[in-house]
Amino acid sequence: MITILKQDATKQQRDNLIKWFEAQGLKVHISEGEFQTVLGLVGDTSRIDDSLIDALDIVERVTRVTESYKAANRKFHPEDTVVSIGDVKIGGGNFAMIAGPCSVESEAQIIEVAESIKASGATLLRGGAFKPRTSPYDFQGMKAEGLELLLEAKAKTGLPIVTEIMNAEHLPLFEDVDVLQVGARNMQNFELLKAVGKTKKPILLKRGLANTLKELLMSAEYIMSEGNENVILCERGIRTFETYTRNTLDLSAIPALREHTHLPIVIDPSHATGKASLVEPMALAAVAAGADGLMIEVHNDPEAALCDGAQSLRPEQFAQLADKVRKIREALV
Amino acid sequence: MITILKQDATKQQRDNLIKWFEAQGLKVHISEGEFQTVLGLVGDTSRIDDSLIDALDIVERVTRVTESYKAANRKFHPEDTVVSIGDVKIGGGNFAMIAGPCSVESEAQIIEVAESIKASGATLLRGGAFKPRTSPYDFQGMKAEGLELLLEAKAKTGLPIVTEIMNAEHLPLFEDVDVLQVGARNMQNFELLKAVGKTKKPILLKRGLANTLKELLMSAEYIMSEGNENVILCERGIRTFETYTRNTLDLSAIPALREHTHLPIVIDPSHATGKASLVEPMALAAVAAGADGLMIEVHNDPEAALCDGAQSLRPEQFAQLADKVRKIREALV
Amino acid sequence: MITILKQDATKQQRDNLIKWFEAQGLKVHISEGEFQTVLGLVGDTSRIDDSLIDALDIVERVTRVTESYKAANRKFHPEDTVVSIGDVKIGGGNFAMIAGPCSVESEAQIIEVAESIKASGATLLRGGAFKPRTSPYDFQGMKAEGLELLLEAKAKTGLPIVTEIMNAEHLPLFEDVDVLQVGARNMQNFELLKAVGKTKKPILLKRGLANTLKELLMSAEYIMSEGNENVILCERGIRTFETYTRNTLDLSAIPALREHTHLPIVIDPSHATGKASLVEPMALAAVAAGADGLMIEVHNDPEAALCDGAQSLRPEQFAQLADKVRKIREALV
Amino acid sequence: MITILKQDATKQQRDNLIKWFEAQGLKVHISEGEFQTVLGLVGDTSRIDDSLIDALDIVERVTRVTESYKAANRKFHPEDTVVSIGDVKIGGGNFAMIAGPCSVESEAQIIEVAESIKASGATLLRGGAFKPRTSPYDFQGMKAEGLELLLEAKAKTGLPIVTEIMNAEHLPLFEDVDVLQVGARNMQNFELLKAVGKTKKPILLKRGLANTLKELLMSAEYIMSEGNENVILCERGIRTFETYTRNTLDLSAIPALREHTHLPIVIDPSHATGKASLVEPMALAAVAAGADGLMIEVHNDPEAALCDGAQSLRPEQFAQLADKVRKIREALV
Repeated sequence: MITILKQDATKQQRDNLIKWFEAQGLKVHISEGEFQTVLGLVGDTSRIDDSLIDALDIVERVTRVTESYKAANRKFHPEDTVVSIGDVKIGGGNFAMIAGPCSVESEAQIIEVAESIKASGATLLRGGAFKPRTSPYDFQGMKAEGLELLLEAKAKTGLPIVTEIMNAEHLPLFEDVDVLQVGARNMQNFELLKAVGKTKKPILLKRGLANTLKELLMSAEYIMSEGNENVILCERGIRTFETYTRNTLDLSAIPALREHTHLPIVIDPSHATGKASLVEPMALAAVAAGADGLMIEVHNDPEAALCDGAQSLRPEQFAQLADKVRKIREALV
Repeated sequence: MITILKQDATKQQRDNLIKWFEAQGLKVHISEGEFQTVLGLVGDTSRIDDSLIDALDIVERVTRVTESYKAANRKFHPEDTVVSIGDVKIGGGNFAMIAGPCSVESEAQIIEVAESIKASGATLLRGGAFKPRTSPYDFQGMKAEGLELLLEAKAKTGLPIVTEIMNAEHLPLFEDVDVLQVGARNMQNFELLKAVGKTKKPILLKRGLANTLKELLMSAEYIMSEGNENVILCERGIRTFETYTRNTLDLSAIPALREHTHLPIVIDPSHATGKASLVEPMALAAVAAGADGLMIEVHNDPEAALCDGAQSLRPEQFAQLADKVRKIREALV
Repeated sequence: MITILKQDATKQQRDNLIKWFEAQGLKVHISEGEFQTVLGLVGDTSRIDDSLIDALDIVERVTRVTESYKAANRKFHPEDTVVSIGDVKIGGGNFAMIAGPCSVESEAQIIEVAESIKASGATLLRGGAFKPRTSPYDFQGMKAEGLELLLEAKAKTGLPIVTEIMNAEHLPLFEDVDVLQVGARNMQNFELLKAVGKTKKPILLKRGLANTLKELLMSAEYIMSEGNENVILCERGIRTFETYTRNTLDLSAIPALREHTHLPIVIDPSHATGKASLVEPMALAAVAAGADGLMIEVHNDPEAALCDGAQSLRPEQFAQLADKVRKIREALV
Repeated sequence: MITILKQDATKQQRDNLIKWFEAQGLKVHISEGEFQTVLGLVGDTSRIDDSLIDALDIVERVTRVTESYKAANRKFHPEDTVVSIGDVKIGGGNFAMIAGPCSVESEAQIIEVAESIKASGATLLRGGAFKPRTSPYDFQGMKAEGLELLLEAKAKTGLPIVTEIMNAEHLPLFEDVDVLQVGARNMQNFELLKAVGKTKKPILLKRGLANTLKELLMSAEYIMSEGNENVILCERGIRTFETYTRNTLDLSAIPALREHTHLPIVIDPSHATGKASLVEPMALAAVAAGADGLMIEVHNDPEAALCDGAQSLRPEQFAQLADKVRKIREALV
């Protein structure tokens, strides 16, 4: 860690700061320039809060030389992590196709969707039972009943299931769920992260709408520091000034995360774009950029046909997408 | 609610959508234009998910005419809400000065700070016991012990206390706390919002780093829809591309929220800017813009003097700030 | 265009507004609701400034039903535009590979790069002669001399050239340039847009760092409204809170623009990411998402090898990239 | 300047980079850590392009210790700059109230507004003659005729005038204009900056919608490096995800710029918020935060009354605002 002091720092202030660093067990190298003094800190700086130091009157800037995440860091764990979910593997060259409806709505719905996506090559079934909704008046999901229907669909098709958990108190209900999803709005719900870190289940951790990649890795670190190393990272769009798409899908997160972490990286183009017509191009782009998996909303609703055009694909659209994904993966071997 | 259909929507698709709206109990007014059809929906649209409708293939755009928040809406509750915390009032012309350290560190610290801010005119004491930290390796607060020290400081000074709750399971520990703070990272932790909505305590709800004012009001609505109408809104900076300040303090939130809601509005310039030198100018600006209160970090650390220059003010700097706040409030009467 | 009035608009205010709309030659349909009045405007609203209307006291919101761009709008021009640059075509299924150094530095450099990229399949040569630099102290390009070297490279290789123009007064110098580039910082330099719109040359128009897709199309409209319909749109990253990459490459711009305009769309992953290691994955992603072309920085500097790792690819890296691009394009046929 | 190398940089790569720095006339101090090497560069680094260095394969991060702006930098020019415009001064404790209509529309309009704002205490008259408009179909201003009407209003009232220039070729038309405004969209139109830098006129430089404070200072540096030191900085809102206000007014720019530069700082709350109801609170906030001046849109249109509620204030609203501004300034003496 490097701390650059302001030109007008007094000797007294400087000495106080250096003493404080030394009291934290760090060695301090001092280098004087014409307009500033630079302090190089050597030792375990992972417990130093750089935003605190950065806010000091006498400090111009703080730069970390080593990242404060350890368990998630590729530097200390160069090999790709492969997360196993039953027979399904993800990461290290293993590609996962996760698909299913936004919300579980009925037995017929979830089973029909599960069977159709399996036929098209999906390897995991997703479906929301507990739904985080901006408005308290919107449908909040089928909850425990939804989980049961997912397990039924798993029993019928053999597809492991992925579903969102919003509250650590619900953990007992999720005992048979294969992958726990932590949603974007809970990416920095540290209490929830610690709770799922105490389980052994794979965790699909979604990037928050306004969180940096570094913060995503720090949240993964929360889970991993509790002993659970089965973390799958998921980019699902960030919030920007652009209003045409619901969010802006940040695909450069794939190679950028790849450099910094060994954890698998999945892309969710359905929530990112909010429009079915954009799902296929963005899914193919994610595969070309090297994603370890996709998470795609698929819906079937032949009666009302309401959602035909929403962000969900129809089963036949998903089959076509899955086919193109295979072609791109083969082309890039 | 108004739904604008795309030019290429087929009659079949249009009729399906109209039928679906009617099944939700709405009347649909159809108006045909040269390049589009506009559907006007009359009735209770608060349960319609506009992002779902917006995402439909045949829909060009959806515009809400009435907001989906009711309890927090000034339209239905034109008078300012005044929240009472013991003898302290906030809102409707009552100004609250909330001050105290970022974290509770020791009995001596919290009591000394409490006494000094009281002498300068603070009306509420803040202090973190449970701390949300980006890194699992950073100090997480004194927890239950910190709460006890806050209560001791309250006993000594009579100042009601404000402190953050991160987990609904901790509610029993907060029984004697006067105001529960829901932090920015938990603004859309809907499970926590519902839990604090079931208490009768005043809730200080911080705006998330990347949340719109509308989403802030929807989160207030979560609390209020459970029966707790004592919600205080707090702007504490939003995330933007600018890197000089930690966040960008959005002071236009004050008059903008004022138009839309009757709830009191407090500004936290300490977290927003991350630099002590910016706290006073931003605090004065907030008062001039009409804020109902301020939340200011104040620290005393005569020994190490480490935090002298951090985002916390020293007690004498706070006294000076409080004095200028009074002058501006008097000038604007 | 739809204008929603606020609940508290007086009859007088309402009538004034309606009269004003009628004076602009529009028909006004009035629809009354419980909490608001909605005005539907029929006629040519393209000259109405919606931000002005939106800012009126009595207006809740304004929604455009038809876009204010006409020439660039796919609704009025459903077929893809194909821009011809000598024998090279772009758009409508024709893919363009534009490559070359960030800046022209010397005759040897530009000719060597031009020959190597041509051998790998590039169809256009790019190179900066006039360089927009944030700092007045940074290298501003070789200017007129740089243009001459580009023309020399064109003479040697037959590759048409693309280079940035920053000032309409320089147009005479660009007489033999094939494609004029308008840079991101000049996307809303309307005087420059009008000037290049008066030429017949193809214009490569880069999206501004904080401009919406709609604003990009309005800037294309500036060029087209002067009579020049040969506009190529270029996404090169937008400014967001993320700091790991220089900008955030918004690949959903490809399918989103595709729906709204008939103009060709090119992606520049080099400037967007600012890191050579991210260029290939993002370039492949752009192709998978349906881009009409790529713009890639390629550098050769065997002496100093300084820029080996910068955002520029070495010729052999570009050759590999071009090969993978071909494979993805073939896989998706 | 400090350059942190990646752990996996080879000795060869490192030596190449060090040699290159030395060839630029810099001394390089090398400091070895367990996971990285840090290079400290001593000498004139202002011509080193840090984004280029940052993008190198072997570089982890680059941190500047001294800013690359010199003329605008308070470090080298500690006293506040006072810009004189006839008898009007701005900066160093001198407050300027700039007011007038968005666009000059007629002789009657501009003279009536000028007289009314003068009566309320305005010290400068603003008005747009050349208007930058997103759409080529929107009104582009009265141009040269508008400038003449502004000069007439100046002759009648004695108020110096501020108006926007969009094209260096128009400079002869602006000979009698007192302050040249460079608009937000042209903040990085470097050709225009250089051209106005060659005049001796005061320049009001608006911050771009997505430009950092550092970039604003670099653009001021462009003007100053041509010999014109009369630069006034203007914050007018930045682009964020929030949609309630047109832009987000970043008032922390006032104290933040104050620390880094000696140039005067003006705030434009009219364009920032886009709503008349927000102008007064934001103007007062700006004054409380220490602005050197305000720029306020004032309109009179007794006939149509169309713009009554737009972002422009009516003369009587402006008079009231000016009165409150005086009270706040007195309170803070």
